Formats: sequence, C-alpha cells, structure tokens
Amino acid sequence: MLRSPIGATRRRPLVLLGHGGGRHKSARGLVARARCYVTRCCFAVAAIDAPGHGDRQGTELDEQFAAGSKERMPAGEPIGPLITWRNASPAARAVPEWQSTLDAPQDLDHVDASGRVGFRGVSLGSAIGVPLAAAEPRITATVFGCAGHETLAEAAAQVTVPVESLLQWDDEPVPRDSGLALFDAFASREKPLHTNPGRNAGIPAFEPESSQRFFARHLVREHDAP
Amino acid sequence: MLRSPIGATRRRPLVLLGHGGGRHKSARGLVARARCYVTRCCFAVAAIDAPGHGDRQGTELDEQFAAGSKERMPAGEPIGPLITWRNASPAARAVPEWQSTLDAPQDLDHVDASGRVGFRGVSLGSAIGVPLAAAEPRITATVFGCAGHETLAEAAAQVTVPVESLLQWDDEPVPRDSGLALFDAFASREKPLHTNPGRNAGIPAFEPESSQRFFARHLVREHDAP
Repeated sequence: MLRSPIGATRRRPLVLLGHGGGRHKSARGLVARARCYVTRCCFAVAAIDAPGHGDRQGTELDEQFAAGSKERMPAGEPIGPLITWRNASPAARAVPEWQSTLDAPQDLDHVDASGRVGFRGVSLGSAIGVPLAAAEPRITATVFGCAGHETLAEAAAQVTVPVESLLQWDDEPVPRDSGLALFDAFASREKPLHTNPGRNAGIPAFEPESSQRFFARHLVREHDAP
Repeated sequence: MLRSPIGATRRRPLVLLGHGGGRHKSARGLVARARCYVTRCCFAVAAIDAPGHGDRQGTELDEQFAAGSKERMPAGEPIGPLITWRNASPAARAVPEWQSTLDAPQDLDHVDASGRVGFRGVSLGSAIGVPLAAAEPRITATVFGCAGHETLAEAAAQVTVPVESLLQWDDEPVPRDSGLALFDAFASREKPLHTNPGRNAGIPAFEPESSQRFFARHLVREHDAP
C-alpha cells in the first residue's frame, strides 16, 4: 500500500510503516499516521501486511500464540515472553519482504526509495524493523518502541543510523530494564529515547508529532518541493 | 534580568531560566536560549543569579566545594556526591528568591506571571527548580535534567504539572539509576523523559527545540498575539 500527496511529481522521502501485532497495513491508527506524513510532511508512505496478518493467512504459529494467550491471560500469567516469541518468528520472513517493497517504487519519479527512507514501527513493528534496519542500508532513520532486547540486541548493535525510541514506563509485555537494554544496544550516535508513563497502548499523542519532526530532520533536503 | 519581544504589549507566557553550577544569569548559553524563547515563541524570559553565582559573592560553602573538587578530581575520585551536596544548599535560599522574581512583573502589562509560567533548568537549575515547582503554583510547566533523586525525590513527589526531563546516559555526576528514579518520582501525569547518549554537557541541539514546543503546548493560548 503506497500513499503519496495528490499531484506529487518530484522525488520525496519514503516512510515505511510497520504495524503492531494483530493489526494490518490498513489499520485505522496506521492510516491516520500515514495521512499525517503525506499531508504535513509531503512524504510518500508504504505499508505491507506482516506474515500472518491482514490479507495474509495465519500460520500454525499464530494459532499456537492465540491458544497460548487464551490459556495464560485468564490465569493472570504474563504474556510478555509469549509475545517476544511470537514477534521473533515473522521477522526472518518479513525482512526480505520489506526489501522487495523498497525495490518496487524504483521506477516511480515521485518516490526516493534509495537512501531517504525512514522506518517506523513499535512492538511487532520493531521486532521486524530492527533486523530490517540492520540489514538494509537504504533505511537512514528509524523510530522503534515497546520492544525489549531479548531477541533484538544483536541486530540493534548493527544499527548505526539515527533511532528515536519509545519506551512506555508501565509496559506490560516489555519490562523497563529490557527496553533500556535495547536502547543501550543501538550503535547509533543519535538515538534519543522518549520514556512516558503508561502502558503499551498509551503512547501520548505528542510522540507521533515528535517522530514526524525526527524524520523531517533526517530525510528532508533543502530543495525538496511539496 | 527580564527579556521580552520588542514592542510587546499583550500579556504573554513567562519562562524562568535557571542556570547551571558555575554559570550565571547572563551566561552565553542561557542568553542564546532566552533569545530563542523571545524571538521564536514570543515569550518573556526571566533569569536571576543563584546564590554564590554571577554578581553575588561566593559563600564559604562554595569555597569548600572548590577545595573539595581540587582534591578529588586529580585523584580520579567521583565528584558526583560533592555536586549533589553543593547543589542542595542554594535551593533553600533560591526558592523564595524566584518567588519574588515572579511577583516583580505583576504590574507589567506584557507579562503573564500569574499562571502561565514555565521553568527550565538542568543540573543546579534542577536542584533549585524542582523544590521551586513543588512550592509555587504559578509554575505550570517545567523542564529539568541532569539531576538525581537523592536530594530531590521528596520535592518531585509534590510536582504535578507537566515535566519534560533530560537524562544524559553517560552523565558523570548523575548515575543512570538515580536519574531514572527522579523521573519516576514526579507525580505529574505528563512527564516525557528524553534520554540521549553522551555526558553531562552533551545535551543534543534538538532538545532545546523540543523544550520550546513543550512550553508552547502548555503555556500558549489560542488568542495570544505576538
């Protein structure tokens, strides 16, 4: 799903939006965010369904996850480790899919997919996005969040582009120490971490605006036209 | 020292700028920051010398601090505890001084010092500003940073207005855990914490801009005129 400003002609930055677990490429929150990037920043935005999400059939793994959650949640058991395990699996499949997504607009004259590419995704979006950013040199600025270091520290240590991270202080599946350890693991010189009180789903409304400015700072060039 | 836009008539928000240890009300960095608030945000800005700083004679305590630093630094001993001790003392004297500073512009028709007041100060500026914000209901938004919880947790627990905090991940005098504990102690519902790699003096250039937006969000009203 590629979105860009009406009548766009000249090449502009591209932001890839990774959705969260259980969501998809056209989820309401993702579309609202894409609209802001397109109308306020004049960026192009691309989104795809993660494996087992949206238009893509669920796998056996997803069924196992659903069954596991159903067992644990009523019993009051933490589902954090289950989410970490669920998120780690699609990453290996999703990284080459995002790379093909970046190849696709090469012939479009209004998208610069070759070196002014941002990636934003929290939770499952980060589980996929961190290894993607480690593997893909066309991505030059990233926003991650609500993710721990357990399965991601190794990939994070290979990320050198600017990273804005979001950590929810009362996140249920991601303990504070794990989120802080992931921030610590990024090799980037510029890596602001924004911590806010509240749970996983409670990222404050001013943070997406901050992410827009972050991408604008790193992706926009002086002579970019709307 | 009160600064405001040329030709200002209508009432506008007031930002109080607290300087760091060893600096003063007209230090270069503070004046540059004041200029941004005045020219970009159309705020008024007030700054005063902390006890023992700038135009105010040093106290015996300051001499003890200087002597203590001279002994410890060449020996490679940490001076963090010494800074905590040095910063705690002027706070008790500085709080009523800032409150008088807020009384002063009551008769000026271009400054709203009665409920649209921000305070920004890191290090010594926070050692004074946190107890000030706890004591002074006219202050409605604050930016603090590079400060630990040791002497400030009790005052922080009484601060309920929005706080944007800055934590330098490699701060020498403020250990990470102490900075995180101070963030945790604030009673505010809105309290974004911005953590960046680097030492005490290395706050990135994009953070002051973020503070401007934070104050604009909390202090500006719809019909404010420049």
